[in-house]
Amino acid sequence: MAETDRIFELTEKYFTSQNKNEIETELKKLLSPYDKDSIGIAQMNPKVGDIEYNSRKIVQYINFAQSIGLDLVVFPELILTGFPLENSIENHPIIANECIKWLNEIAKITTKTTALVGFVEPYEDKFHDSVAVLNGGKITDVIRRKSLPNNSEFNDFNCITTFNSSNNVIIVNGIKYGILIGEDFDFEQNADLIINICAVPTKIKNEQIKHSFMSSLAQKYSVPLVYVNQVGSIDGASFDGTSRVFDKDGKLFACAKSFEEQFLIVNPAKNLGKIYPSVILSNNDNKSQFSLDYEPDMERTYKTLVQGIKDYFGKTGFKRAVLGLSGGLDSTVCAVLLTDALGKENVFGVSMPSKITSQTSKDDAQVLAQNLGIGFTIAPIKDMFDTTNNCLQNLFADVEKHWDNRYKQSFTADNIQARSRAMFLWGVSNEFGNCLPIATSDKSEAYMGYATINGDMSGGFAPIADITKTKLFALARWLNNNREQKNAIPQSVIDKRPGAELAIDPKTNKPLIAEDALMPYEFLDEVIWRIENKKENYNVMLKSEFLYEKNHSVTKEQKTMWLDKFYRRMATALYKKSIMPPFVIVDSPSYNSKQPITSCGVNYKGFEQKEIEQKIQQWL
Amino acid sequence: MAETDRIFELTEKYFTSQNKNEIETELKKLLSPYDKDSIGIAQMNPKVGDIEYNSRKIVQYINFAQSIGLDLVVFPELILTGFPLENSIENHPIIANECIKWLNEIAKITTKTTALVGFVEPYEDKFHDSVAVLNGGKITDVIRRKSLPNNSEFNDFNCITTFNSSNNVIIVNGIKYGILIGEDFDFEQNADLIINICAVPTKIKNEQIKHSFMSSLAQKYSVPLVYVNQVGSIDGASFDGTSRVFDKDGKLFACAKSFEEQFLIVNPAKNLGKIYPSVILSNNDNKSQFSLDYEPDMERTYKTLVQGIKDYFGKTGFKRAVLGLSGGLDSTVCAVLLTDALGKENVFGVSMPSKITSQTSKDDAQVLAQNLGIGFTIAPIKDMFDTTNNCLQNLFADVEKHWDNRYKQSFTADNIQARSRAMFLWGVSNEFGNCLPIATSDKSEAYMGYATINGDMSGGFAPIADITKTKLFALARWLNNNREQKNAIPQSVIDKRPGAELAIDPKTNKPLIAEDALMPYEFLDEVIWRIENKKENYNVMLKSEFLYEKNHSVTKEQKTMWLDKFYRRMATALYKKSIMPPFVIVDSPSYNSKQPITSCGVNYKGFEQKEIEQKIQQWL
Repeated sequence: MAETDRIFELTEKYFTSQNKNEIETELKKLLSPYDKDSIGIAQMNPKVGDIEYNSRKIVQYINFAQSIGLDLVVFPELILTGFPLENSIENHPIIANECIKWLNEIAKITTKTTALVGFVEPYEDKFHDSVAVLNGGKITDVIRRKSLPNNSEFNDFNCITTFNSSNNVIIVNGIKYGILIGEDFDFEQNADLIINICAVPTKIKNEQIKHSFMSSLAQKYSVPLVYVNQVGSIDGASFDGTSRVFDKDGKLFACAKSFEEQFLIVNPAKNLGKIYPSVILSNNDNKSQFSLDYEPDMERTYKTLVQGIKDYFGKTGFKRAVLGLSGGLDSTVCAVLLTDALGKENVFGVSMPSKITSQTSKDDAQVLAQNLGIGFTIAPIKDMFDTTNNCLQNLFADVEKHWDNRYKQSFTADNIQARSRAMFLWGVSNEFGNCLPIATSDKSEAYMGYATINGDMSGGFAPIADITKTKLFALARWLNNNREQKNAIPQSVIDKRPGAELAIDPKTNKPLIAEDALMPYEFLDEVIWRIENKKENYNVMLKSEFLYEKNHSVTKEQKTMWLDKFYRRMATALYKKSIMPPFVIVDSPSYNSKQPITSCGVNYKGFEQKEIEQKIQQWL
Repeated sequence: MAETDRIFELTEKYFTSQNKNEIETELKKLLSPYDKDSIGIAQMNPKVGDIEYNSRKIVQYINFAQSIGLDLVVFPELILTGFPLENSIENHPIIANECIKWLNEIAKITTKTTALVGFVEPYEDKFHDSVAVLNGGKITDVIRRKSLPNNSEFNDFNCITTFNSSNNVIIVNGIKYGILIGEDFDFEQNADLIINICAVPTKIKNEQIKHSFMSSLAQKYSVPLVYVNQVGSIDGASFDGTSRVFDKDGKLFACAKSFEEQFLIVNPAKNLGKIYPSVILSNNDNKSQFSLDYEPDMERTYKTLVQGIKDYFGKTGFKRAVLGLSGGLDSTVCAVLLTDALGKENVFGVSMPSKITSQTSKDDAQVLAQNLGIGFTIAPIKDMFDTTNNCLQNLFADVEKHWDNRYKQSFTADNIQARSRAMFLWGVSNEFGNCLPIATSDKSEAYMGYATINGDMSGGFAPIADITKTKLFALARWLNNNREQKNAIPQSVIDKRPGAELAIDPKTNKPLIAEDALMPYEFLDEVIWRIENKKENYNVMLKSEFLYEKNHSVTKEQKTMWLDKFYRRMATALYKKSIMPPFVIVDSPSYNSKQPITSCGVNYKGFEQKEIEQKIQQWL
């Protein structure tokens, strides 16, 4: 259908075009203005709390919709402020009051097109998750969300309340639209079309369930359903967009791109719609068992990470990143992601070798920087280490006069190395404009607290803190195969066994390998996966067969030791988790979720009933 | 009444006594066993998630209650796990399952005494905030919380749900007890006595309101009301205890101590009760205007801070603290608080002078350490600074080949000083057992981001991050007057104007004074107070008269400049706030509350309606 193709081609061109008027004229002809059911989906990327910035975009989209004669233009939930706001509204109610002022003015530009704009509504001394209906120069109606999620990962719903008596049907050009905000799925009234206005972060889990649910909802009421979602990242929360339209039989009829701002025109009555390729449609990775096959989720993971970095920098006004390049997997993958998100001219890698750093590591760092075309230099930490160590030895001698229990172990020196490197990176960030230093910790190490405070876990942003090590290996391979520039990552980075190169293993006389200090990553990552996805506990895991056990012989003693170590380290890593820099949430809200640091005494193994009985007897 | 006094005297002695049997025998005589209405209030300090630790205490209290023949022993809300749990239960449901196992065994020790024990109940695939009724060796009943707070500062209620059909009256020895959990104040049934089982953190605000409300509730139903509260700190959340009993006329009848674990025996029917002095009764500081008279809240503030430090260290297994002593107000007050919380033998102060550090500052640090009797040494940072600066100059020259926008300002060097000091303190913490370094940031500076990342704002714990500077001055004076050792803080520390001594002010050729770089603390602290307590915005503040303006002449331009600076700095300090170490929440949940870092674009001034109109016109 050539006309249909042309409509989508023109719409895609429009916002960057110099000849907007020409496109408008042609589109108007193709669309036949104010035809029933013609809807513009404005899949928008807001700046949270920046109402002026968001309004400008909203005005542009309404203006476009009007200039080509659409009946309706629909924006995501709470788009005027962006979502999540966490406690912002509670502390600064002016944000909600400003919404009203802006909506009054935005309404004035509406003539024949009706706009549905989500906003925080201050109403009866409370705050509501509302949608304003703008038409004919006025706010003609307000629809308020009726039910709130009882397990949101954000704080917003501590301050936003429900409004049960809200009407949720509006009539535009004789068509009855049923408006559902978020999960307001109790829908009683008749409508010709359902519009679900949302702001739903991307997750592997539940994507397919949500998709099927929307489809079944359309089927149930036997009307088309339009789902409009926010796109872009707000701190760690990543929204994929992927707005969708289902026909009255529940069949997917149109789908916007993932991780891109887009204006999509649809008209279910006239069979006008397009299904763009999206990560949601191409992946279905809600696996019931842990596996190392991360391929189905790689594109979503990569796009979530790149959008997360790009938006965090862009929305905080930073544009450049400096990071340490150790030649290891973590910093390597970070460098590639930063390059793709910020541009090679905005990334600077510093190799900061110590006497422990191997030649391969140094070479790999340099080759990577060359491949990516990013800034690069070498800054050895020997002087820093020697001076710090000298000063500390004097200080320790003084402290020892007062305090016992001096360790005299190598980890004090290990940490000096990591902190010297952070000192360099923060120095660059202080000295050069708009530059953030990068924390390169990954999720496996973060769970284990296997990172140095004020050292490698310190930075303005932590791109990969929600990616486990085995997934990171998969991502490195995927990047080498799927980026325009193939094999930017030296194969040796992917082949070598990760280690921090902070200490020499006395057993091998070589730099300590992380898996030897912790446990095999394949095992570690499965423990994390089982906790986050299955909420399994110690004893269940001890009894279940791990993937690692299928391929390796593991004694029960060994497995017990690893599980003990995991839970012990996880409990004492809660403090480190609490000061982790902002990071992109990719997999699930679990690593992001809060647990009191003082809960380090939780017994994750639990007790046998008999043991408890005996303990209590002893206490009497 | 000599007998009454004796009962309280014996109870206070009991738990540390070697002759428990004697006390039990005497108390049993005085109390006449299993007399109607005799209630033991177990105001307990739990370790969050450590069910074994908590059970042991619960068993001891039940055992005591039984041995002296009380009808009832009542514990705080969720005491078996401690509160708040944040997302712990969601991620580790085993914690809730263990509750059931422990309760079954604890129940077995109950014979004639009935125990009410709060716990997390896994029930019908959900988690409930429940109270178990233990009697005759069994769990005889479970009461579930019916309503949850919609603006809790904790995440617990994302996972804990309500249970509307729960019965909430139990009968013990013919007496009907109405059990209210938390804010379950809708109470329909008749009862002879109301028991309100709670876990409410200390706050200046609303204390008097809560007190009056409980009194009015007793009056309304014309029955005595027993309010049982948790005591102790869990991370930043501080519970004051201060459990109370009101008689049927709403008059305060008994009151437990604040900030201390206590077992209080009451019997409203027999007029047995005691009002211990408590911070809640002695202060009423819900002021409607900002003032510098912090005196009414000083005792509560001090006890909250000391309990917060003590419990954070104790519950995480740390016992020693190392901190930098600059001779300034922040580190001085921290040193005193740490000494009182941990003991002088467990505190070590390090003076780390640079060439900018004045002789007075050095002297003050040394005198303070001597007065307190804590460990002390001097570790100059000159070598560290010089080496770091040399290394960085080389690095900067390399970076400059790729990047423009080099600042060449002094703050890069300023930060090196602060980071060198943190490097020393973390070194000590790594080298000596059970030792945490202390972050000395105060709330005024934290709001302004006037602290160095990986420098003075870095540490394992931040005692005073919720105390504004003017309140800190008041606290320093209060400590000098009210501690057993008078005037431990050198007067010159209190008299001098604070500054970080990181840079020389080119105007005065002396170390930069913080107020000159920011704004007068009296003004700054009032802005914070108005935001946290009144939710006021920029324009309201601009129009209101500040306390500072009553005593100083301030032009509108000057005030505008300060307010602009405040909001600008607050917006860009959101990142620093996100990585602030755990701290004691003292004043209000506002500083602790979350705001997206990317919300730095919020316009806190708002716009005039006319301006908005004009902007939109320009965009069209």
